[in-house]
Amino acid sequence: MTQKQRETVDTLLREAPLDLGGDVAVQRPLMEHLLTAQPLPDDVRTADDHLGGVPVVRVEVDGLATRGTVLHLHGGGFALGTAASSVGLAAAIARHTGMRVVSVDYRLAPEHPYPAAALDVAAAYAALVAEVGDEPVVVSGESAGGNLALTLLLEIRRSGLRTPAAAVLLSPMTDLTVSGDSFRANADKDPNLTAAALGTRSADYLRHTGVAADDPRVSPLFADLRGLPPLLVQAGSNEVLLDDATRLAARAAAAGVEVVLDVTPDVPHVFQAFAGILDEGEAALVRLARFVHDHTGVQTPVDAGAPTV
Amino acid sequence: MTQKQRETVDTLLREAPLDLGGDVAVQRPLMEHLLTAQPLPDDVRTADDHLGGVPVVRVEVDGLATRGTVLHLHGGGFALGTAASSVGLAAAIARHTGMRVVSVDYRLAPEHPYPAAALDVAAAYAALVAEVGDEPVVVSGESAGGNLALTLLLEIRRSGLRTPAAAVLLSPMTDLTVSGDSFRANADKDPNLTAAALGTRSADYLRHTGVAADDPRVSPLFADLRGLPPLLVQAGSNEVLLDDATRLAARAAAAGVEVVLDVTPDVPHVFQAFAGILDEGEAALVRLARFVHDHTGVQTPVDAGAPTV
Repeated sequence: MTQKQRETVDTLLREAPLDLGGDVAVQRPLMEHLLTAQPLPDDVRTADDHLGGVPVVRVEVDGLATRGTVLHLHGGGFALGTAASSVGLAAAIARHTGMRVVSVDYRLAPEHPYPAAALDVAAAYAALVAEVGDEPVVVSGESAGGNLALTLLLEIRRSGLRTPAAAVLLSPMTDLTVSGDSFRANADKDPNLTAAALGTRSADYLRHTGVAADDPRVSPLFADLRGLPPLLVQAGSNEVLLDDATRLAARAAAAGVEVVLDVTPDVPHVFQAFAGILDEGEAALVRLARFVHDHTGVQTPVDAGAPTV
Repeated sequence: MTQKQRETVDTLLREAPLDLGGDVAVQRPLMEHLLTAQPLPDDVRTADDHLGGVPVVRVEVDGLATRGTVLHLHGGGFALGTAASSVGLAAAIARHTGMRVVSVDYRLAPEHPYPAAALDVAAAYAALVAEVGDEPVVVSGESAGGNLALTLLLEIRRSGLRTPAAAVLLSPMTDLTVSGDSFRANADKDPNLTAAALGTRSADYLRHTGVAADDPRVSPLFADLRGLPPLLVQAGSNEVLLDDATRLAARAAAAGVEVVLDVTPDVPHVFQAFAGILDEGEAALVRLARFVHDHTGVQTPVDAGAPTV
């Protein structure tokens, strides 16, 4: 029974001063504060570095036998969030999958509209695959980072770069036209996201670019998805972005992509970030690790009997 | 690499004389022949029995420590198929989940249109939960049996009968109006199903009942799905019924149901029935067993290190 946990997270998000659609100078520090409010476990090690000329944070867990790397793309509507503030979730992914995580500090809008973030992500990925040799690589992304993960997969397909073993998309924002039915249906249930806020961030990302919101380069929901690697799409049933996840999964399936859509009831956007205080978040990360294991062969610490919390 | 396996199964289905939309007197023995062509493993034990006055086949695997029961509903468009012909798949489900399986011989159309099958399934379920005490119960259904599984869950919700721990739906037929886009998009890829055949079977099931094909009692895609237990929906990307699966998953997610949609590329309708000759079928059953384990706590034989083939 985790109803109390779900209510706690819902209240935490409703009461947080963060407004994803607000002025970025004000909202960026609020986002950092929200995401770093829970102290990192003592065994998490981070290192600032660069990959392909792009700043990244490398995240590892002490004592974890690792093989392979997850390239992680943080959320924040293309305008907020940093690799540093994603370390909590990145470390949880490392701990569950038994892989190293590299979180990319891609450039943010409105200062750097499309395609700056997409270019940064592609450059970091290219450098990563050159670095890791034969070891498996997986791409993960949360929210706008899920959008960038899909954009990266399409760019990899186009360019012929090595395809990652799989991609995991947590509450991905796949449609910058902000047109999913869940924007209306879940308007009251979603504790922290709104269509207006996401419309603001979408406009910032595309301003002066001449790229329309329904362009498949920025809205992968409308892209030809054939040939993408296996996708895991996780979402919470309370989020306004639910339909961005369900529609993407349906489109991927129709394109012959191996896809698992995994929806958890009564939880918000990127609920896995609250795994430390929300059992549903922990359970979703266990399923994420199984999916990654199925496609990489990397033994998960859970399989090996290690504690995950 | 299982492309050769996939081609073998595709050819097998294309060359089989079975026509799901044909005359039932001719097609029923052809369906039996197709589904029983592979010999059962030596360790499978079946017993004919009744539950709630409805004939069933009990399926167990020798030497398997079991706890809990899966109520299985075979496929065949409401008009073909039997519990006996479903034993191969039922035994594979038993072997992977570590549970007993009871396959229901519900009455078939056109002799017995709606609600005969639904009543049989509900009666068998009620008798099963009375029989098993506190042990977990899971519902599984393939194709039209996936439809009946959903109908059963809605009836359980209405009547207040004990809710199963989970339901697993293999290529469920959720929309008797035969309206999914995949009927057109996958017309050439699907080796054995067509919109015409499913339209014939739907009409048989509803003839003289006064129930429309879009009635939520027979097309659970259009039902209010709130409060249903966790659902696993598996489908193959080549099937004309793909959209019956993806739309059901999206509707369930929107209704706050815990749901996993799991789509395997380049495989046909109920490909799990070919697990013995198709690696993708075996892998899907492993994932099915994990899902059941997550919701029942029943240790799977795979977890316990037992062979599954």
